[in-house]
Amino acid sequence: MTDRDMSESAMASVLSALELPNEDVRTRAQARLDSLTKPVGSLGRLEELAVHYLGIIGKAAAPRLDPVVFTLAADHGVTAEGVSAYPQSVTAQMVKNFVHGGAGVNVLARHAGASLCLVDMGVAADLSEHAGLLNHKIAFGTRNFLREPAMSREQALQSIQIGTDLAKAACADGKNLLAVGEMGIGNTTASAAIVSVLTGQRVEQVTGRGTGVDDQHLKQKMSVIEQALALHQPSPSDGLDVLTKVGGFEIGGMVGLMLGAAACHVPVVLDGFITGASALIAVALEPKCREYLMASHVSQEPGHRIVLDHLGLAPLLDLRMRLGEGTGACLAVTLIHAALRLYSEMATFEEARVDGALPSS
Amino acid sequence: MTDRDMSESAMASVLSALELPNEDVRTRAQARLDSLTKPVGSLGRLEELAVHYLGIIGKAAAPRLDPVVFTLAADHGVTAEGVSAYPQSVTAQMVKNFVHGGAGVNVLARHAGASLCLVDMGVAADLSEHAGLLNHKIAFGTRNFLREPAMSREQALQSIQIGTDLAKAACADGKNLLAVGEMGIGNTTASAAIVSVLTGQRVEQVTGRGTGVDDQHLKQKMSVIEQALALHQPSPSDGLDVLTKVGGFEIGGMVGLMLGAAACHVPVVLDGFITGASALIAVALEPKCREYLMASHVSQEPGHRIVLDHLGLAPLLDLRMRLGEGTGACLAVTLIHAALRLYSEMATFEEARVDGALPSS
Repeated sequence: MTDRDMSESAMASVLSALELPNEDVRTRAQARLDSLTKPVGSLGRLEELAVHYLGIIGKAAAPRLDPVVFTLAADHGVTAEGVSAYPQSVTAQMVKNFVHGGAGVNVLARHAGASLCLVDMGVAADLSEHAGLLNHKIAFGTRNFLREPAMSREQALQSIQIGTDLAKAACADGKNLLAVGEMGIGNTTASAAIVSVLTGQRVEQVTGRGTGVDDQHLKQKMSVIEQALALHQPSPSDGLDVLTKVGGFEIGGMVGLMLGAAACHVPVVLDGFITGASALIAVALEPKCREYLMASHVSQEPGHRIVLDHLGLAPLLDLRMRLGEGTGACLAVTLIHAALRLYSEMATFEEARVDGALPSS
Repeated sequence: MTDRDMSESAMASVLSALELPNEDVRTRAQARLDSLTKPVGSLGRLEELAVHYLGIIGKAAAPRLDPVVFTLAADHGVTAEGVSAYPQSVTAQMVKNFVHGGAGVNVLARHAGASLCLVDMGVAADLSEHAGLLNHKIAFGTRNFLREPAMSREQALQSIQIGTDLAKAACADGKNLLAVGEMGIGNTTASAAIVSVLTGQRVEQVTGRGTGVDDQHLKQKMSVIEQALALHQPSPSDGLDVLTKVGGFEIGGMVGLMLGAAACHVPVVLDGFITGASALIAVALEPKCREYLMASHVSQEPGHRIVLDHLGLAPLLDLRMRLGEGTGACLAVTLIHAALRLYSEMATFEEARVDGALPSS
């Protein structure tokens, strides 16, 4: 058996272990919600969130929430084609900013009461001296997928394996909610390519301005993606093939986080467009994975709505954000926390002695 | 000078003191946001929230947020007409639930780090023994506005005065964000009447199921409102007249909270439909008041969207909630808090040494 065979076999065993959420727990959770001092259903999506969460963890008693945000960073060879408004060096600079606590995701993770786990999946700079950054560098950036596949199939499997292991370790450590985010100059280009293949939508419909390219560079970005897809012909039925040919190391890492969390019966909160592209790959590998995902927000990147519709996920927030990093996911963590506190802390009609001949809506 | 003249004169002096938010501070706040380590504008509505907040308080440095949620309770004589799914006694029962900490707003105020101020503005039960409940009872519920005006003009002025005084006392105590909420069986009926008059929309367009009435009672509710408006002919140009004829004591109290907070340069976070009806009255009394309002969410009550559109306010959340109490407002407080933390705690491009030749969007 080769290393590659072993990796494929390890992934297959994770995939085959995924289960569907617990329907009995969902029913019991909804019954408790209906007994609380409020008109039936009047907490709307907060009630759905609590039921969704509890069904996944398989317990009708809400635990104390202990969330972790994973922000995965990597570089993209395709930046050589002028697809981003920022130079590639900004990825490493922003990772240092994360390490020092000054980026948006640092602030919002603190606000959400979540720990933040920073991972170098493949930044094109030596960051090994930075404490507080997990070093899982697969390479110094992917290759330029306009010319050749972004990575080897072994590297794609490796990126997924790293994410799966990280998720399993976090869950073993008691984390009971995972949020995912990323940093990587050029990664909306990789994501648009993935999304086009896996949703069947045209490149121009799923490609946006990312960090803010002008009209000319947007046209260039679309052209690069179209040429790459024509060259590599990634197979829509093979998520690993798509990741290999036009993906990124942080994208593969997030696929692994999703699969690993699902294997541990822990929900995963998505962030923006790039995390959505990762989710499409995870769900292509194993459709049950979808049941473990929560959509935090819909971003300004036009392809994001298409991704969420394809996944059948409704975003909790629409605040015209487009920062990535996990910032939108952090805000959703505070809503999930609120939903679980309502579930646990509100009084029932009986406890509060309120007349509760409840009309349902 | 009669008592009524004195009250009218006191209100007029508050109204005439209202100022517009500080444009210079807004400009400086946006400049700081543009210097932070993120693409320009990429935090979307969180950036707008920070600018809005700082423009109101008139300081470009964000203070430590110290929010308070006011939940005002009162009863409504019109419940005699079978307009609600719950008996009037539920108002007092729910107030006791608030006092004991078991209602939705208790949980979400704790989650938002906000103190909660409970006020009896006119519940139809003696609640004076309850510590933790401010007793500002104007009467044991309003009168049945199908037969006679809900209250006297003196009582309407009194309710506004109470709210204004409460807001000013809270602001003097260091509170720098007010959220408003309410409890009162029958108050979506009063609110629909107010909203119909002040937006010019037909009763059937602004009347919903409240806590959850069935089709027959919804028809009855609309009919009661139509008859009351035909009988009293409230003047759309006189907010006080509308409050007097078809309002409620908690609604008048919230009008006063909005005016008092605005006079102290403190923003007010709205909750659902009933707080929106109060906002329409406040803005009818003094249009500048609008600049101090933030819309937390849009509820399932169909008239709420009409109210927000009329006020020109965009809700932050759409979670299909319809509980009232201040629950939606509490969730928005956590978003405002997040916005101010991002503003204060994120590093600038210069501080983080990130290449920030910033493309704007």
